[in-house]
Amino acid sequence: MGYRRLDVDERRRQLLELGADLFTRFSYDELSMSRIAREAGISKALLYHYFPSKEAYFVATLEEKAAELQRRTEPDPSLPPFEQLSGSLDAYLAWVEENAGSFDKMIRSSGAVPEVRALLDRVRADTVKRISEGLAPDGEPSPVLRTAVRGWLGFLDGACLDWIEHRDLDRETLHGLLLAALTGAVLAAGEATER
Amino acid sequence: MGYRRLDVDERRRQLLELGADLFTRFSYDELSMSRIAREAGISKALLYHYFPSKEAYFVATLEEKAAELQRRTEPDPSLPPFEQLSGSLDAYLAWVEENAGSFDKMIRSSGAVPEVRALLDRVRADTVKRISEGLAPDGEPSPVLRTAVRGWLGFLDGACLDWIEHRDLDRETLHGLLLAALTGAVLAAGEATER
Repeated sequence: MGYRRLDVDERRRQLLELGADLFTRFSYDELSMSRIAREAGISKALLYHYFPSKEAYFVATLEEKAAELQRRTEPDPSLPPFEQLSGSLDAYLAWVEENAGSFDKMIRSSGAVPEVRALLDRVRADTVKRISEGLAPDGEPSPVLRTAVRGWLGFLDGACLDWIEHRDLDRETLHGLLLAALTGAVLAAGEATER
Repeated sequence: MGYRRLDVDERRRQLLELGADLFTRFSYDELSMSRIAREAGISKALLYHYFPSKEAYFVATLEEKAAELQRRTEPDPSLPPFEQLSGSLDAYLAWVEENAGSFDKMIRSSGAVPEVRALLDRVRADTVKRISEGLAPDGEPSPVLRTAVRGWLGFLDGACLDWIEHRDLDRETLHGLLLAALTGAVLAAGEATER
């Protein structure tokens, strides 16, 4: 029993890994459940046993990637706030560098698949909350600080898309630019609040 | 002849206006060509005469909105560069405030409809080029300046989405935050380039 269970989890894990690769190499429309089953070397019936539809499979592969990203960028609570952020950001960029295709797919497909959009919205809202609460002196971010942090997450996505498209910046330079942009935005938010 | 031609253009314009409203109030799947024709008070055949499909109609309404946005944010070349940018940005925010539904739709549907994505990618690339060439001393933006400006456009989108969701910032405060964020990013890019 225990052996069979592990087997099922392991197969699912392998299918998700395959999906991340397939959905990067092919457009969504080019892939069918038959084709996916063929690439996985399993029957279509078995594939349907794991995932009820192509959309469910696509969403699951992105969810798996998003979960991996969250694990890898988990801040280290033993560090001071700024170092936590800097460390998470570096881990984020390392992940984007390794998973450029999945990252591009995740950001760009978010409008097409409601579940992906909901997932990204949730991750962004959590991240805005975590960063802005860490930056607010009393843990209660002002509307303008919240807006600045949300804006900065957009900066992060935009800069990363540009980065993987052009590949003409090293990761350290981008990391420095992103931290400086966040600092600038947070300072500006502080000034706007005091006015 | 001249009269009939005007009539056709005017009807098309009215249909695009109606579409901007309908696609904001209803989800894409809720609308059918029959429903749209009914709302427009014309026959389905006449609607198909103007737009070959629902997708074509949707894309045309967003293209019309994007064109309107570009007209309204056209920089005034008689002003110094920073004032041009500040003026365009203010016009952008005024447009977003008036067209919150279309703006949200445009950003969020960009993954679902390839034409919308292509349109937004083109507008973004043009804007990055215009802003970064204006900011580069010799008109040749470095990779890090280009990345900073592309990142800032993401900041702009993210902050605007947050703004129309929460409606707890006045436009002037947001305008100040956005300009300060751009200044911060451009300074950071300059420092990264000198290193």
